Amino acid sequence: MKFKIGLCQMAVGENKALNLAKAENMILEASKKNCDILVLPEMFNCPYKNEAFPLYAEEFGMETTQKLSQWARKHKIYLFGGTIPELSIHEEEKKQIYNTCFIFDRKGELLGRYRKMHLFDIEIKDKVTFKESDTLSKGNEIVTIDTEFGKIGVAICYDLRFPELMRALALKGCQVIIVPAAFNTTTGPKHWNLTLRARAVDNQVYMVGASPARDCSSFYQAYGYSSIIDPWGDVISQGDEKEGIITSEIDLDYVEEVRNQLPLLKHRRTDRYDLIIK
Amino acid sequence: MKFKIGLCQMAVGENKALNLAKAENMILEASKKNCDILVLPEMFNCPYKNEAFPLYAEEFGMETTQKLSQWARKHKIYLFGGTIPELSIHEEEKKQIYNTCFIFDRKGELLGRYRKMHLFDIEIKDKVTFKESDTLSKGNEIVTIDTEFGKIGVAICYDLRFPELMRALALKGCQVIIVPAAFNTTTGPKHWNLTLRARAVDNQVYMVGASPARDCSSFYQAYGYSSIIDPWGDVISQGDEKEGIITSEIDLDYVEEVRNQLPLLKHRRTDRYDLIIK
Repeated sequence: MKFKIGLCQMAVGENKALNLAKAENMILEASKKNCDILVLPEMFNCPYKNEAFPLYAEEFGMETTQKLSQWARKHKIYLFGGTIPELSIHEEEKKQIYNTCFIFDRKGELLGRYRKMHLFDIEIKDKVTFKESDTLSKGNEIVTIDTEFGKIGVAICYDLRFPELMRALALKGCQVIIVPAAFNTTTGPKHWNLTLRARAVDNQVYMVGASPARDCSSFYQAYGYSSIIDPWGDVISQGDEKEGIITSEIDLDYVEEVRNQLPLLKHRRTDRYDLIIK
Repeated sequence: MKFKIGLCQMAVGENKALNLAKAENMILEASKKNCDILVLPEMFNCPYKNEAFPLYAEEFGMETTQKLSQWARKHKIYLFGGTIPELSIHEEEKKQIYNTCFIFDRKGELLGRYRKMHLFDIEIKDKVTFKESDTLSKGNEIVTIDTEFGKIGVAICYDLRFPELMRALALKGCQVIIVPAAFNTTTGPKHWNLTLRARAVDNQVYMVGASPARDCSSFYQAYGYSSIIDPWGDVISQGDEKEGIITSEIDLDYVEEVRNQLPLLKHRRTDRYDLIIK
């Protein structure tokens, strides 16, 4: 089975309304390329900085998710809505913010929500320091999305660095893993494609990584280079640092072919080790 | 703490005596470079083919392991003796052959033995077909080696493709993982460096992969490109397809530095998933 996927590598700025308008325009443009699935980048409606997350946060059903639903329905596409800071009001009025991907089907109905499980708390001397946990809470659920093209896994940016999560998604039956992300210009050149490609090869899945375009004037500079990787580890479509739409056909028969030729998932020594999912 | 490691990327032929003489010469040469640890490639005394494994197989204490011990003692080095087909006679005279790495200390004493856990049974259409399990048995133990430079992990070739094993070695405290291997000219260009580098980045360890040199006249053509990768994923020393000695300093303080800046091992969500070792 074949289908087409498109990534909207958009520049994200300080103005939420402009970010949403930009996303809308790119989705319109991408839908003309006959994509079945479209993907937005991490924090597509909000600058990637802790000061912004609480200010831009929205509950499900508010402006951004309403629009995502409308766009999916209008263009009859599956929409993996990048991520937004999701406000969640728990019992006793306790507010939490998650880094959340909302996913809609061709009718605009919510198919699932994935909240980033691994928060990005790093301190690379003289290069990049970020502590998402200053404002964000961790998600607690591994999420797969049922589509007419089978199960699709979702992970967000720093999640990609944890082979356990990627393996869990493959073992749950995903043949495609979609990763809205915003690697930076320090870790991006070193680790973005390396890690996407290795996950594709290890798990024999298509890896789809959607980044914002680079904006050299912003506090946090996204790397760009949104990529679609096939299960043999080859980059089959890739952007550069500028805005653009990256598309590729996904061929699920090729996943089967690779898995037959090199039966990695069958050769795991689960008699000696195993991944348990709690 | 710093030390020096050297890989002997030797051509392996049909003649066992010549293979042993070649290994001896390259170890002599490498020891002049003040290496603390030397590594030979997979099946360094035997052509890499199923017909050869039973014919070249030896029990521990026979010619090849005697020589490995002597070379380690003579040059006062740690010697990771690549691999050999190891004959093991179990109860009721049942013979089994393993793909085994024997490791000796500076006094020539056996420090450990690791038997390849994942056998290489693949069938890539029109390219490469191999079924180790036709002649070899699987090892059942994850092995770490205690040295004056801390714990060192061992894995063999196809083992490298299983992120669980590499993670298990890191969690057991290894900061360096040594991989005698013989990737081929189909999988090598695509996956050898990619996988070594990704394992280094994910586990924040030095990855050391030792291949034979390429011999275009042989049944199975090894890829070559023996490599030493640092915990940031950078290739710090690498051969080409020809014979040669690849050396590099290993800096365990750098492992700590990388682990502090990007605390991947601490950020694992072991409340949601975990790797169990049986």
